[in-house]
Amino acid sequence: MASRVIRTGNSLLRPLSTSAASRLHPALAAQSYRHFTATTSAMSSYYSWEPEGPTVKTEIPGPKAKAAIEELHEVFDTRSLNMLTDYQNSSGNYIADPDGNVLLDVYAQIASIPIGYNNPALIKAARGDDMINGLINRPALGNFPPKDWAEVLKTGILKVAPKGLNQVFTAMAGSDANETAYKAAFMWRRQHERGGPHVEFTQQEMDSAMKNELPPGAKEYSIMSFKTAFHGRLFGSLSTTRSKPIHKLDIPSFDWPQATFPLLKYPLEEHVEENHAAEKAALEEVEHLILNYRVPPCAVVVEPIQSEGGDNHASPEFFRGLREITRKHNVLFIVDEVQTGVGATGKFWAHEHWNLQDPPDMVTFSKKAQTAGYYFGNPELRPNKPYRQFNTWMGDPARALLFRAIVQEIERLDLVANTARVGDYLYGKLEGLAKKYPGQFDNLRGKGMGTFIAFDNPNRDEFLVRAKKFGVNIGGSGVSAVRLRPMLIFEERHADILLEALEKVVKSFQ
Amino acid sequence: MASRVIRTGNSLLRPLSTSAASRLHPALAAQSYRHFTATTSAMSSYYSWEPEGPTVKTEIPGPKAKAAIEELHEVFDTRSLNMLTDYQNSSGNYIADPDGNVLLDVYAQIASIPIGYNNPALIKAARGDDMINGLINRPALGNFPPKDWAEVLKTGILKVAPKGLNQVFTAMAGSDANETAYKAAFMWRRQHERGGPHVEFTQQEMDSAMKNELPPGAKEYSIMSFKTAFHGRLFGSLSTTRSKPIHKLDIPSFDWPQATFPLLKYPLEEHVEENHAAEKAALEEVEHLILNYRVPPCAVVVEPIQSEGGDNHASPEFFRGLREITRKHNVLFIVDEVQTGVGATGKFWAHEHWNLQDPPDMVTFSKKAQTAGYYFGNPELRPNKPYRQFNTWMGDPARALLFRAIVQEIERLDLVANTARVGDYLYGKLEGLAKKYPGQFDNLRGKGMGTFIAFDNPNRDEFLVRAKKFGVNIGGSGVSAVRLRPMLIFEERHADILLEALEKVVKSFQ
Repeated sequence: MASRVIRTGNSLLRPLSTSAASRLHPALAAQSYRHFTATTSAMSSYYSWEPEGPTVKTEIPGPKAKAAIEELHEVFDTRSLNMLTDYQNSSGNYIADPDGNVLLDVYAQIASIPIGYNNPALIKAARGDDMINGLINRPALGNFPPKDWAEVLKTGILKVAPKGLNQVFTAMAGSDANETAYKAAFMWRRQHERGGPHVEFTQQEMDSAMKNELPPGAKEYSIMSFKTAFHGRLFGSLSTTRSKPIHKLDIPSFDWPQATFPLLKYPLEEHVEENHAAEKAALEEVEHLILNYRVPPCAVVVEPIQSEGGDNHASPEFFRGLREITRKHNVLFIVDEVQTGVGATGKFWAHEHWNLQDPPDMVTFSKKAQTAGYYFGNPELRPNKPYRQFNTWMGDPARALLFRAIVQEIERLDLVANTARVGDYLYGKLEGLAKKYPGQFDNLRGKGMGTFIAFDNPNRDEFLVRAKKFGVNIGGSGVSAVRLRPMLIFEERHADILLEALEKVVKSFQ
Repeated sequence: MASRVIRTGNSLLRPLSTSAASRLHPALAAQSYRHFTATTSAMSSYYSWEPEGPTVKTEIPGPKAKAAIEELHEVFDTRSLNMLTDYQNSSGNYIADPDGNVLLDVYAQIASIPIGYNNPALIKAARGDDMINGLINRPALGNFPPKDWAEVLKTGILKVAPKGLNQVFTAMAGSDANETAYKAAFMWRRQHERGGPHVEFTQQEMDSAMKNELPPGAKEYSIMSFKTAFHGRLFGSLSTTRSKPIHKLDIPSFDWPQATFPLLKYPLEEHVEENHAAEKAALEEVEHLILNYRVPPCAVVVEPIQSEGGDNHASPEFFRGLREITRKHNVLFIVDEVQTGVGATGKFWAHEHWNLQDPPDMVTFSKKAQTAGYYFGNPELRPNKPYRQFNTWMGDPARALLFRAIVQEIERLDLVANTARVGDYLYGKLEGLAKKYPGQFDNLRGKGMGTFIAFDNPNRDEFLVRAKKFGVNIGGSGVSAVRLRPMLIFEERHADILLEALEKVVKSFQ
């Protein structure tokens, strides 16, 4: 791999040796689990306390984890448990468990850990008086904001606001970030219909609202999303989620339209015309649904890369087309950056890859931001009266302060550029593996999109289980995708460890 | 007031003089605001660093607050702002602002601060390694729970679980606590209909779900709530919220039924028969809607005291009736304790006042718990498969640790008993004021319900504004209610300050 220098504060550090190797202990190879440990000095350039590599000592879960899971299951549903975690002993890119297993983590709490476990900059922020104050004196932010709330927002959440969007509504998690954005869209659309912000509500409108009805003659609106999209699991966001039946079964939902997401064929350069045609057809369907769906949409919501739904990408042209169509028909364009945001694609926001002429109307965020909300720029998206978009907490100042510390660290270490560079390195190596092992790294996608990379594998679920035995924690998405979601401090040396493990997994199937 | 001893840790402290007095500075009386400061040593028995009383130095907002609000408004909607807050200088029962005003706070961040601003026990918890770990290594709790998650739950959230409910689903705030409880109810009901947990979903069911439809022939279900109820503001919870049009206008909602909440007449002892008839009629309506509403309910959700909707109480008999009717018709009974929970009514959970023969099916919590979720006891309320009730974060371990510290402090200082006793004291004094000022403390309610007390005032909004000038921060509910929501460390001395301020407000209208 390329030698390089990394700027860390005022000093330039040369990375240590990066040829991360690891080996199986032959003595343990016959056991049902594999004892695995790294032998190189593959330490992070950013965080020198990171282990040198993964260590696999027991089956996962091992005996200590099993006992704890049994205890936990009595009071808390553990059937979706992936790995009981020892956070105290996790560090940087490495996640630990109670049995002493330490895995390279490229799943990162479902793409939610931005700059490593037990990051010293975050420890420092957590110890600060500001954080303690935010934690123990939790405000109702809409009624009683802290005196320095403007400063906290401007030096944190808003410092990284997408271009053209200078206001924020803070929330708690991805689902309510999207739902409050949807609410803003409905209020905005019906305000237009009503004749503007100064037109008062009629008694009939108020009476109807209290009965969960529309006033006679008023138009019902919807939010349009895409097939295989994921936007959350509460009742409104779930109505726009279309990834898997298990998310939606038995839960009432709204009659809202779904358009087909262009399912591209890979490698892209071999399917240029087909893919172009798929995107064109998808855009035509969007326009058709806007004009003809029985409950017309007042907004279209889209992920820059459909993540939970299987890591489905589309071209910048497609998204520019979406922006054009929504603009043309006076429909809002909401970009859900809950999973793609905060650097993982090699830009701070994934939609920066699109070179939009004018910005999205709203951009939602959560996960790596450790807090949540939606950005907007148009003052008309503030409802015409107070208390229409409101709730008790409206976010969490402790989490907003943490995001500020994360942003500072991302800037100090230039971690978005790091992710772009390491992503290119990783993608190139994966192309090599895909050629070497046909059918095992299918539909490799995410070129030029930082470390936001995925591929399909015919034995995906077992692939993920075996990856742990070779020292790596990986997640899946959709039906057959292996999705890579490293943190922003993931370096070439970590990529090498990952690549070696992936190859071992594939070989283990042969 | 009664002299008493209060146990604080190992020492018994005798309260200081409690005849809290305050006076206007005559020199400032002619100004448009009133300069107000306390002169007594009315210090809290619990927290000796509390100020001796309120201090009002400027109009609220004063010049410093005004400048900060203007700056904040550029990026964050401040139209619902009540008071810009200086949390660093707030302490115990007292809230401060940037202009040096310090008010006795009986609103407490919309009933969300349990044991005082800058509580030393919480500062200690916030400084602990556990908390820092929970804050900076935020887990996806469903997939990667911390190794000690069972212990954190058992020594905190579950230590105070309502009788009969031994499991918890953790969430982020009141809205999603309720919505996940509703989801559990829908899944439970349709599982019954389907024939049990072991019956697999059909392909038709899965296909229909992905289209936001029900499979042909399947029954659609609803959640029943009550008129003037408040259960949150996301799409599902808002469909059960019926308090004010401003919450609901323009937001799509589900066709779910609302029953009439018995609007009792006060004083209760003068309207026994009328009130009994109102409750009987309400219960009949509930049963009628269960049997006849076009979208039959699978659950009824109710607040023990309708809070946001105007502090509407009903008798224990009414709630026992609800439990009976829901049991009879195989409909779940969800008690929303988001505002009433955690001690304010003189019981840890308000529904303990009802002496139910069998527990509610689910109890939701948030606000004073500083975290959120729902309790349940019946294993059938765990959906039949994993990932049906799931999301990335499923709560926040830092907030769960804070609740554990809150619970410990409540137990150490016996604060629920304190609240019951102080509430009785306050209620008695308010009865006196109601007699002295007819029409000003109308429909006084909350007898025997701790400090969860309210009354109606004909000039409610102006009442709340003037209360600040006399040193007290109070909130309203419904159309005309003044709602008292002191913290659990509210003592007789604080009640005296409050009562004096209330009387001054009323006199100022004369």
